[in-house]
Amino acid sequence: MSYNLLKGKKGIIFGALDENSIAWKTAERAHEEGAEFVLTNAPIAMRMGTINQLAEKTGSQIIPADATSVEDLENLVEKSMEILGGKLDFVLHSIGMSINVRKGRHYTDQKYDWTQKGTDVSAMSFHKVMQTLYKADAMNEWGSIVALTYMAAQRVFPDYNDMADNKAYLESIARSFGYFFGTDKKVRVNTISQSPTPTTAGSGVKGFEGFFSYAEKMSPLGNATALECADYTITLFSDLTKKVTLQNLFHDGGFSNMGVSTKIMEAFTKD
Amino acid sequence: MSYNLLKGKKGIIFGALDENSIAWKTAERAHEEGAEFVLTNAPIAMRMGTINQLAEKTGSQIIPADATSVEDLENLVEKSMEILGGKLDFVLHSIGMSINVRKGRHYTDQKYDWTQKGTDVSAMSFHKVMQTLYKADAMNEWGSIVALTYMAAQRVFPDYNDMADNKAYLESIARSFGYFFGTDKKVRVNTISQSPTPTTAGSGVKGFEGFFSYAEKMSPLGNATALECADYTITLFSDLTKKVTLQNLFHDGGFSNMGVSTKIMEAFTKD
Amino acid sequence: MSYNLLKGKKGIIFGALDENSIAWKTAERAHEEGAEFVLTNAPIAMRMGTINQLAEKTGSQIIPADATSVEDLENLVEKSMEILGGKLDFVLHSIGMSINVRKGRHYTDQKYDWTQKGTDVSAMSFHKVMQTLYKADAMNEWGSIVALTYMAAQRVFPDYNDMADNKAYLESIARSFGYFFGTDKKVRVNTISQSPTPTTAGSGVKGFEGFFSYAEKMSPLGNATALECADYTITLFSDLTKKVTLQNLFHDGGFSNMGVSTKIMEAFTKD
Amino acid sequence: MSYNLLKGKKGIIFGALDENSIAWKTAERAHEEGAEFVLTNAPIAMRMGTINQLAEKTGSQIIPADATSVEDLENLVEKSMEILGGKLDFVLHSIGMSINVRKGRHYTDQKYDWTQKGTDVSAMSFHKVMQTLYKADAMNEWGSIVALTYMAAQRVFPDYNDMADNKAYLESIARSFGYFFGTDKKVRVNTISQSPTPTTAGSGVKGFEGFFSYAEKMSPLGNATALECADYTITLFSDLTKKVTLQNLFHDGGFSNMGVSTKIMEAFTKD
Repeated sequence: MSYNLLKGKKGIIFGALDENSIAWKTAERAHEEGAEFVLTNAPIAMRMGTINQLAEKTGSQIIPADATSVEDLENLVEKSMEILGGKLDFVLHSIGMSINVRKGRHYTDQKYDWTQKGTDVSAMSFHKVMQTLYKADAMNEWGSIVALTYMAAQRVFPDYNDMADNKAYLESIARSFGYFFGTDKKVRVNTISQSPTPTTAGSGVKGFEGFFSYAEKMSPLGNATALECADYTITLFSDLTKKVTLQNLFHDGGFSNMGVSTKIMEAFTKD
Repeated sequence: MSYNLLKGKKGIIFGALDENSIAWKTAERAHEEGAEFVLTNAPIAMRMGTINQLAEKTGSQIIPADATSVEDLENLVEKSMEILGGKLDFVLHSIGMSINVRKGRHYTDQKYDWTQKGTDVSAMSFHKVMQTLYKADAMNEWGSIVALTYMAAQRVFPDYNDMADNKAYLESIARSFGYFFGTDKKVRVNTISQSPTPTTAGSGVKGFEGFFSYAEKMSPLGNATALECADYTITLFSDLTKKVTLQNLFHDGGFSNMGVSTKIMEAFTKD
Repeated sequence: MSYNLLKGKKGIIFGALDENSIAWKTAERAHEEGAEFVLTNAPIAMRMGTINQLAEKTGSQIIPADATSVEDLENLVEKSMEILGGKLDFVLHSIGMSINVRKGRHYTDQKYDWTQKGTDVSAMSFHKVMQTLYKADAMNEWGSIVALTYMAAQRVFPDYNDMADNKAYLESIARSFGYFFGTDKKVRVNTISQSPTPTTAGSGVKGFEGFFSYAEKMSPLGNATALECADYTITLFSDLTKKVTLQNLFHDGGFSNMGVSTKIMEAFTKD
Repeated sequence: MSYNLLKGKKGIIFGALDENSIAWKTAERAHEEGAEFVLTNAPIAMRMGTINQLAEKTGSQIIPADATSVEDLENLVEKSMEILGGKLDFVLHSIGMSINVRKGRHYTDQKYDWTQKGTDVSAMSFHKVMQTLYKADAMNEWGSIVALTYMAAQRVFPDYNDMADNKAYLESIARSFGYFFGTDKKVRVNTISQSPTPTTAGSGVKGFEGFFSYAEKMSPLGNATALECADYTITLFSDLTKKVTLQNLFHDGGFSNMGVSTKIMEAFTKD
């Protein structure tokens, strides 16, 4: 399937680890839709994943960058414009990590060095990416910047731990920077709040499987897949959504506006 | 511009009055994107407008229907499937009217017969349209239903009068019916909350021009036009947004998430 | 328990059916806190309930009024001021009814006469109450008007049927009229969005018991009781909340901001 | 004015700098309502302010604490329970600071060390306070924790700079920790989103005066004062709001639900 929605558009895609990644699917779809882009990820993530295959498949170059390092980001943006031959039309931020989650520290027993590191990687990195793009005047007018987020920013999911707060911080950065990027450069900035997705990162969260099934039963259309998220992201990179900005857009089969579904009540009252 | 996003898709478009209408622009864009559809409007609106030109231009047939009449809607849906040769993939509801607004009755001095009539035309009509489609099993799986709304449903715009409450009612109907349409038929239902738009209907509201300029200065990307709204609607009718449902989607250059802009503060403090 | 929070305040309380009613508890608590008030209900509700006992207990008079009848409301407001000897400081609207719910009509199979009647009783009545108060200039400055609502206005609870849309409409009326009541009369208008409550009305809803238990397990502090809602309402009638207006205030043990609780996940994964 | 709403209750109040502070007014009102409490502030803030006068007036002791230091907080909580003779019933967090704001760094030109420091002081400190209370089991059942915030967490106010993101982060922490504090200890956690307030801290923000006037004209009831905020906070510490938790409560004369007011449109169109 291809509509040439991104024909001639150039971009940077952060966070493609392996073929389960939303960023990976987005890269594949962006390629199909006619875009050219640079792939990037943290050096450590690159060693763990298989990004080279994606680069080959999509004819892309890879520039490693630690998204918490302004220096790395400046290098990334500069090199990307050289490689792609001009300014950028789209950027995808799909980065998140909590050491407290990884190490199994409960939310009421945080190690604050880890909390701070998670905030830097998961949220402040988005500010750093945008500040670097803004200062380098690297985005074309009517360009589009998207970050992936999760509804834990609005509502409590106990096992999501400090990532909930990181996502709230991230979504606020999208609004705050989106104002200046819109007013000064005519660039839009939005976040997509995606269903729980069995990516390599997501599946690692405690109790993921049970929760995935819960969300599936709660959502009128079921959970959204990584590929469907990629499709939706493509629409936000296209010229058909030029006036959508500062928004947090739920892509979740309807979960976000559910109080309870009949299927959940049935499972609940079966006991 | 065409991407063939709606190739082979069939639908019904309510509310195209004249070339300033969002529904009109959507019909033009849907036609360009490969869709076939039936146009409909209330008999009285058809006499005032120029819908025949649109029908000719887009190769569409017109079926008049009063959207508050279940009988008219049943006829519309049945005939549309006959004309288009099958079930529907998309429906646009772009209908709204307040007699209190038209007659200049203040919000604190409503004539309740008029209020009730406005609710019926502007909001309950959306339930009637969906109930008719649902009972006739007239939507294909992964079809998309969209209604146009305005942010007065969430926040106070004094001159918007009882249309604010009608839009809140409409958006609730989208969620409530969207649940059943999603669960039972895999059809998505969303509302688009559009910038103030100088349509023939919109411009008639008291103080429209001043407010349009205010919204323009508040929105980082400026107000969204009717054509841009049509573009956005096309993405919601396309196969790229299959898991977006029960949402109220702001298409407004960012207005909805603004507290105040620098331009507004400048205009305000100039006094 | 009494703090004299409403000493010298006068009001009208709609909707006390029997001792399970939130309005009943609010009347008792308002009496304890030093308020004087008139009780009112629809003639038919008065025959079913035991409001006379409440009147006796709280030293109140009863004025029957159909809240959809402007004439009845005008009489109520006029007589109340006579009885209480002056303008009003608080009004509680606790009225809701759906014939579709009562008669078991599914949301996708509404009888629209019934839908319209439910809208009139449950939501438009709130506009009528406020318009009557506003026109009669019956509220003291810094008075407080509260209506009870439910979170189905924001999120889908399938069995709540058309009451969901009625509550969305009601909450919008609170904002819209609250603007004019605030600006013109310095009166605040808010809605309280209460936990599912085993009132005589509430318990009648299909599947109430199961849902009550679900909400209990979802809410960090458990469901809020009718008495707790009365306590909260007292704070909104007091002089300590003068600048709270146009708000929809969740009083629900935290349910409204939950995605999922550990207890719900345990019940869900037990299968 | 006193209702004995907090008779016998014990607490800690953070952030009383001088008599313009909301925390100062809250301490005065809590004292009037019968509470006993410990006052605390950062050592540097204590040197700049006049907290000793407040301590004298309210019969309170002062324990200096840097709210970013877990060690200081542990000492504060332990000593407070000793001084007050038992567990705590309420805690007020009124702390915020951005070095980027102070030093005039634009939001698109952040110095990230400063950003991180602001996040630590303004938001993560709230987590640290709650984690310390939680681990020490220092709160009585049905205790109440409140933090002050601002609507920039939801909507863009360009001059609010990185404090907007800090407040979004803070509000998320309130929800996340509120879940565990509610479930495990029956303690409620809420934030109050207050009007712009001419405190010593607030007034320092660029363009504060113009913005204060803008908010005054936008809000149906005008801006809420520090004293009114103190009154509202008292209700949240009282036993009348036991089931309100995880909420962000707007205390702003209605600003938060305004699109535009007639007064603002008049000022705007005068040009």
